[in-house]
Amino acid sequence: MSPGSEHAARGGIDLGGTKIQTIVVDADNKILGQSRRPTPTEGGPEDVAKEIEAALREATAQAGLETRELAGVGVGSPGDADEATGVVSDARNLPGWIGPFPLGEQLSGQFGVPVRVGNDVQVAVQGEFELGAAKEFDTILGVWWGTGVGGGLILDGKPWLGRGAAAEIGHVVVKMGGARCTCGRKGCMEAYAGRMAMEIRARKEVQNGAKTDLFRIMEERGRDRLTSGVWERALRHGDDLATRLMDRAVKALGAGVASCVNVIDPEAVIIGGGLGVRMGERYVRRIAARMHPHLFMDDRPPEIRLAGLGDLGGAIGAALLVDARVPTPAT
Amino acid sequence: MSPGSEHAARGGIDLGGTKIQTIVVDADNKILGQSRRPTPTEGGPEDVAKEIEAALREATAQAGLETRELAGVGVGSPGDADEATGVVSDARNLPGWIGPFPLGEQLSGQFGVPVRVGNDVQVAVQGEFELGAAKEFDTILGVWWGTGVGGGLILDGKPWLGRGAAAEIGHVVVKMGGARCTCGRKGCMEAYAGRMAMEIRARKEVQNGAKTDLFRIMEERGRDRLTSGVWERALRHGDDLATRLMDRAVKALGAGVASCVNVIDPEAVIIGGGLGVRMGERYVRRIAARMHPHLFMDDRPPEIRLAGLGDLGGAIGAALLVDARVPTPAT
Repeated sequence: MSPGSEHAARGGIDLGGTKIQTIVVDADNKILGQSRRPTPTEGGPEDVAKEIEAALREATAQAGLETRELAGVGVGSPGDADEATGVVSDARNLPGWIGPFPLGEQLSGQFGVPVRVGNDVQVAVQGEFELGAAKEFDTILGVWWGTGVGGGLILDGKPWLGRGAAAEIGHVVVKMGGARCTCGRKGCMEAYAGRMAMEIRARKEVQNGAKTDLFRIMEERGRDRLTSGVWERALRHGDDLATRLMDRAVKALGAGVASCVNVIDPEAVIIGGGLGVRMGERYVRRIAARMHPHLFMDDRPPEIRLAGLGDLGGAIGAALLVDARVPTPAT
Repeated sequence: MSPGSEHAARGGIDLGGTKIQTIVVDADNKILGQSRRPTPTEGGPEDVAKEIEAALREATAQAGLETRELAGVGVGSPGDADEATGVVSDARNLPGWIGPFPLGEQLSGQFGVPVRVGNDVQVAVQGEFELGAAKEFDTILGVWWGTGVGGGLILDGKPWLGRGAAAEIGHVVVKMGGARCTCGRKGCMEAYAGRMAMEIRARKEVQNGAKTDLFRIMEERGRDRLTSGVWERALRHGDDLATRLMDRAVKALGAGVASCVNVIDPEAVIIGGGLGVRMGERYVRRIAARMHPHLFMDDRPPEIRLAGLGDLGGAIGAALLVDARVPTPAT
């Protein structure tokens, strides 16, 4: 590998509540190395930063590089990630991470190269915009359907962050006085469609006597959570409760995403996230059908597409944080 | 009046379902003349254009000018107004105006000066942004509460129109499977908060035996509609039905506008429109209180303010369409 291409390589990190996915890409965003580690469930931000380091070192080694040879590293982070300072706070899916922690600074010290931190969903949506399913559009809404329902907006080619918390589409109200959301509010789209909320509801219904294979499948797979794979399997077998809760989720996504479309009027809606990618094209069509009755301009709905970068999309989008901001050193 | 200031004068027209409000302003947006006429309830677009002409000629005469001396005229129009072409279609509050009509071209021929056409709510919001309650902000959401609930977005100082139909906030879903909206859809914010929908609901409840003074007040005032003034009077007298329907409207506005804030994260929300301006500051506070439980960033809500330009705001905002686009001829 020539010194030139070494210097153009960048790291990308998708920091999730379950796993840390890292990649190393070249100047053309071709993947040179990748590694995945479980996110620590105990400890605090420093422990998470250590696992991130280990995972990225593995990916970098796979690429035949050392981390200090990277042009930089981008991180897509949950919680409240400040792009300007690299500080992350209120990351409730991560252990002991309520207060602010200077993740960018910490990792930059560990790796010896610049580190940029962005919102996990926003960087994944940026990845789809630059390299994935939304390449030909200027204005898109990303709907990241997973543990929660996150969003990302790109307007006229640029990320729209508002005052830092735009596109919190999971907390669009779809039913006044409706279901309790994991955020504590009532009637949020996420209270019906987020995987966490769906699991809470499933457990409650089972307590009340409902029959389902969801938890048997979960145990067979050695999980302690209703993962996307567990939902998919239960649905494939025609499980009643799973079918009913998924129908409810799709209906809420239809109403909530249509509301967002009525506000933004984007060219395209991209459906991603763990559950979105797992459920695939058929569910993209189902969500589109449920959106349609609520679209103000129903004669010209936006394009509705599945995210194209798959599982690595978050890490690829994170690596783009570097591309956009750090000039590749001359060799 | 010197020839220079004559040339800098501009016309502004607020074309509503009930009235046509016209103004003439100088280069500093000082009002030189104004006239108001009822919107024709019969005929078609040409008849409306004739009334617009008569009203603007009155305002221009009051300013001591003739229309051909204006630098240009801006129109805020209901329906689907195409800023690029000046064509207006689907203006359902206007008589016989479903198909496209070249309003800009028609009026330009009548007045002998350039005419720009914009969306009525968007131009009113632009007026508040440049001259009214939102002067110190860059990113605002305008909530125009009247016959329906319209919206206008300004992001980083520029109107955000999406593909031409952004900010249709009245049709954000606040209750899946909820009340039937005048647009035919279910559960829209406007189905609870639009004055038209509130009147339909009031009539239905009276048919079902509810007691109210709303329709007595309406008749006393010689109206055939529950105008903002009728609602205000009934509420002042503690009318049960009016109070209940207004509480329901405020609750829906709280949920729906909070949803929009969660998507856009604006610095400020401006409440305007016929009902908004009439109900005033106290209702702005009530709406803010109802928004708060649904705001994702509830520790830093946006500023929520009443529109500052009052009844003439729409026409003033329309006149700004000219300011922004037509250079004032040298004298």
